[in-house]
This record gives sequence, structure tokens and C-alpha cells, in this order.
Amino acid sequence: ADDVVDLLALVGDDVTEEVLRGVDLERAAGLRKLSRYDPESAGGVMNSELVTVSADLRIGDAIKLIKIEGEEAEETHGIFVVDEEDRPIGYLSDRQLITHSIHEEVCEVMAQPVTIASGADQEEAAGLVQHYQLEELAVVDAAGVLVGSIAADDAHIVLEEEASEDFLKLVGAPADQPTRQSVPRRVRNRLPLQGVTVLGGLLTAWILDLALGEHLSGDADLLRFIPIVIGLAGNVGIQSSTILVRGFATGEVERDRELAVLRGEVTVGFLIGLICGAATTLISTTVEADTMAPAFAVAVGVAIAVAVTWAAMLGCVVPLVCRRVGIDPAVVAGPFLITVSDISGTVLYLGVAHILLPA
Amino acid sequence: ADDVVDLLALVGDDVTEEVLRGVDLERAAGLRKLSRYDPESAGGVMNSELVTVSADLRIGDAIKLIKIEGEEAEETHGIFVVDEEDRPIGYLSDRQLITHSIHEEVCEVMAQPVTIASGADQEEAAGLVQHYQLEELAVVDAAGVLVGSIAADDAHIVLEEEASEDFLKLVGAPADQPTRQSVPRRVRNRLPLQGVTVLGGLLTAWILDLALGEHLSGDADLLRFIPIVIGLAGNVGIQSSTILVRGFATGEVERDRELAVLRGEVTVGFLIGLICGAATTLISTTVEADTMAPAFAVAVGVAIAVAVTWAAMLGCVVPLVCRRVGIDPAVVAGPFLITVSDISGTVLYLGVAHILLPA
Repeated sequence: ADDVVDLLALVGDDVTEEVLRGVDLERAAGLRKLSRYDPESAGGVMNSELVTVSADLRIGDAIKLIKIEGEEAEETHGIFVVDEEDRPIGYLSDRQLITHSIHEEVCEVMAQPVTIASGADQEEAAGLVQHYQLEELAVVDAAGVLVGSIAADDAHIVLEEEASEDFLKLVGAPADQPTRQSVPRRVRNRLPLQGVTVLGGLLTAWILDLALGEHLSGDADLLRFIPIVIGLAGNVGIQSSTILVRGFATGEVERDRELAVLRGEVTVGFLIGLICGAATTLISTTVEADTMAPAFAVAVGVAIAVAVTWAAMLGCVVPLVCRRVGIDPAVVAGPFLITVSDISGTVLYLGVAHILLPA
Repeated sequence: ADDVVDLLALVGDDVTEEVLRGVDLERAAGLRKLSRYDPESAGGVMNSELVTVSADLRIGDAIKLIKIEGEEAEETHGIFVVDEEDRPIGYLSDRQLITHSIHEEVCEVMAQPVTIASGADQEEAAGLVQHYQLEELAVVDAAGVLVGSIAADDAHIVLEEEASEDFLKLVGAPADQPTRQSVPRRVRNRLPLQGVTVLGGLLTAWILDLALGEHLSGDADLLRFIPIVIGLAGNVGIQSSTILVRGFATGEVERDRELAVLRGEVTVGFLIGLICGAATTLISTTVEADTMAPAFAVAVGVAIAVAVTWAAMLGCVVPLVCRRVGIDPAVVAGPFLITVSDISGTVLYLGVAHILLPA
């Protein structure tokens, strides 16, 4: 604000008067205000360093104002026109300011602004910017007063982040930059889905026992747990491959991080496999205590852990190899991977369990 | 170009001279040139309507040039500075033009431009814009001549599209706006993954027969096909839910289209189930002709079709209900859905097959 006053002293009196009519002197408090908003809200992502003008200002004077104010409002690509109560009534892009005569009043050129409440979700705000193809969206408080703006590029960043978030959530691996998080944290993020899968799989195994128990003897009883194996291996594999494919696109997984990412993901897969295998052993021996031999339950648990670790490795290696040889990882890592991990996981599970079980 | 000539006639002679030195008269041919590029390349997404200036032009004259040329170069937010051979040597944003003195030469203010070859992949171009936080990326031909530019918002649209594409590919449902495509086309897009799953599942069933065939009698033999059921139901369910969750975010699936989308996805699921069920019946009776009763193979096929249709319905209903009641569809549609579809698919498969099989 000091700089503004200094500059006003340098220009002529009539200019100063024009300028002062347009200046929003509360701008300086902007940065302090920003921290009051939810970071996921429109207020949280908005830029509060704006240049605002009144409707009767001439374009030439608006340009002068930007020359004075503009340095502090570098993030914006235009100016908002406000009424006496600081409510937004128009918007002019820098390009409009340049292409119109300096003698026109801003109200003759300005476009109707689109506004959103500062408390609204950032995704809603970004959606408005996209839908109306706005350069800037006006963010207003409860009284309709302009408190900031969301530019097109900020909106697109929000939409991109939300897209990644949605997909990582869909595969049960919710995280921001998942390959940069610690292994325990990654395991914690992804364990809920695996827990649900284990419980669902145990329920299926129990239903299969009720329906077909009399027909299942010896190793055939291992088949009841195949839904758990396929479910877990599928989850872990698709989590790793989704994280990698997304990481390739965002630049999170560069060539020099490939080995570190592979190591991290396989460790995560191993730990998830261990926890889920142990849970399967413990729960199934407890629930089916009178019919299931402990050795059988342990063999099932160990075989699950091996199959899940294997799936995590596949989920990393397939996209990494695809990138190396120049095949689109997304096409191959999905379909191919799911099937390969289903088959090899099942075979691995049966093989390991068979070795562990007394003949 | 006619308008430009008309305007030049209106301004003074000295201005005209300045302006002509800066004008790129080949601009008019821009739109025609654009169609020569691969639509997925930098040239295919670039904007070829640019205002270019020479390095010694003063900012005030650059602004005059934009006033004349600007209407046809509305997509841009700045100007490129080029050398005698039209190679880009600098960039100035509109905001820089506004905030600097009209007497400065553009070379004093301009920033170093970042360039990309017109044949480069659009994703690479978008990545450069994102990495260097550019307002505009210069697109050049083989001789280094400026042929167009990619603005930040276009780059972000490319990145968003690529993100959606990656994820739809990962779940084996590659498509642009999948809910707006015809049902046969959707089935065709998604069938390859299901085909791989059926073949993989049949391979697993065959391995299970070799390993455990002697232990499997009567209905227990149905268990060998559970990997196919879980695989297909999981694929179809996650395809539907991914398409819906993405459609919610992009506005492709609005409230008024919910029923149409549900109907379309369930029809797609039913057709995929029918095709895959029939394939399973045909292939397994052919391969295991001497051991498998035709009635058994038909029961397996029908049961698979029912379970897959059910999974497609779940894959739509779960996200739709989540949105209605205000729960994040992405969190629930992934983990919850996979497990529910695994269990209910298995139970449905066994139930339907059991009813169809002679006791």
C-alpha cells in the first residue's frame, strides 16, 4: 500500500483522483484473509490480490491503475468491475483492455461476471470456470462482496487433482503423490479396502462351505479361498499400476525413481499380504475351529501373502516395462495385468499351499 | 486480412510502417495449415492465430498491433517476438504489455520462450506448459519457424483428457464420453478385456481340473469357474462405476441423464455377460468334451451372464445412490463395490447354476 501512495504522488492530481475512485484499498489485507478459508473451498484456492475498478472508469485509467497495482496482482489476467458495495458487476480481460479505445468506459466493454460463494467446494468452482470457459471466476462473501478470483489455470489444476483423487479412491489407494509417502502410511491408506476384501472373501468361503462343503475334500477345500486371493491380488495389482500410470503422467515417477518406486510398492504389497494372510488364518481358524486344521489355515495365510506380494510386483513391473519398450502402460497395465495376476495368483496360491500342506 | 488493410488505411503513415514490420502476413493461412497435423500432436492442438512482433518494436506499437490484429488472435494472452526467419526469440504477456512503459522495446521486457516441435505428442507439450508454468508454449516446425502456440488452458484440457483416458484404459473401457456412445460400440470397446478374462479364467479352470479334479464332484466342479465369474463381474462393475464417477466430475452424467445412463450400462453389461457366458460354455464343452456334461456347461454360461448383468447394475446403482445421499461416490464405488460384487456375484453364480442343474 505504501508503494501505491508513493506512485500516486508522482502522477498528476486528476489521474490520482480517477485512480483513487477505482482502487480497492482493502486488497492489502488479502493474504491474511486467505488463511481463514477451508483449503478445499473456493476461498481456499482463490487469489485475493485483485485489481478492481468502478464502472465509470475509462479504459485508459484502468490501464494506469494496473500499471500501479499490477505488480501485486500478477496472478490475474484481467480486472473486475465493482459497484459501490464492492460487489462484482463486470469483468475485462487484459486483452480487452489492450484492444479497446482508452476513451471508452469499462462498463461499455465489460462482460457479466460469474460468481461463486467463498465457502463453495473448489470442485464446483472449477466446474463453473470450465462450463462457462471463464478467464476468471469471481469469489464473493455472504454479502456478495468480491473477495477474490479463481483463474482458469487454477481451476484446471483443481480439476486434474480431483480426477487423480477420484481414480486413486476408486482403486482404494487414496493419497496425494502416493509414491512419495512412507511405506507405513501407504499400507494404512490401502488397508481398508483389503480388509473389506478379506471379510467379504471369508463370507464367501463360509457360504461355499455351507453350499458345497460335503463335496470338498483335501486340497479342494483351498478353492473356497480363491475369491480372497483373486480379490486381494487384483486390488494390490491395480493399485500399484494405477499409481504408476498416474505417476508417469504427472512426472511423479521419473526414470531415476523407478527402482525406489518398485521397491516401495513391493514392500507395501508384501506387508498388506502378510497382514491379510494372517487375518485370514486367524479368523478362519476361529470361525471354523471344529472343522479346519490349524496347519491348513496357516498354509492358506502364507499362500495369500505370497500371491499378494507377487501381484504388487506385477503391478509395478508391467507398467515400467511398457514404458521402457514404448507401449502405452495404461492399455496393458489394466486388462493384461488383471488377468495375469488372477491366473498366476491362483496358481501361486495353490502351489504354495500344496507344498506347505502334509500330503 | 482485408480488415487489417482497411484499418491500416485509417491510422497514420508512420504507425503503418511500424505495424507492417511486425505483422506476420502468413497468419491468414493458419486454419488451413492446422488440418495437416496429427490431432494428438502439438500441431494438432495449437492455436495458429498469433500476433508476432520483431524485437526492436516498442511496447506502445506492439499494443497498437494487437488492437489491429487482436480480434483474430483472441485465443492468445500475449505476443511472441520473432527474428528475421520467424523463429521465436521472446514472449510477452498482455499483462506485461499493460504494466510496462509504451516507450520500452519489447526485447527489454520479453521472456525466453519455451518451444516444442509441431510433431511432438500433445501430452509432452502439455507437460512442458505445466512444468515451466508457461502462459503459452511456442510450437515450431522443422526449421524452427513459429507456427502456433499452446496456451495454458489448452494444455490443462489435454492433461485432463489424458488422465481420464488413462483411467478408462486401465479398467479396460477406453472411450471418449463413454455414456454417449451407442451400446454396440460400448460393448465392442470393452469386450477385449472380457475376452482376455474369459480365456485366462478358462486356463485357470483347466489348471484347477488338473490339480484338484479328483476332489471335485457334482456342484463343487462349479468352483473352477469362479475366477471367470469374479473376474468378469469385477471388470464390468469397475468399468461402470469408473465411467459414472468420471461422468459426475466432467458433467457428462447430469441428474436428467441418470436413468438413460443406468439403462445403457446395464444393457452393455447384459450383452457382455451373454457373449462371455456363451463363450465359456462353447470353449469349455469343446476342450473338456469327454468329461463335461453339456447341461453343466450351459448352466455355467447362463449363471455367468446373470452375475455379470448384476455386477453392471451394481456398478451404476452404487455411485448413483452415493451421489443422491451425498457420499463421495469414488470412495464407496471402488472398494465397497468390488467386494459386494465379488460376493454377490459368486453367490448368484452358484445359485443360478444350482437351479439349472439336475439334482
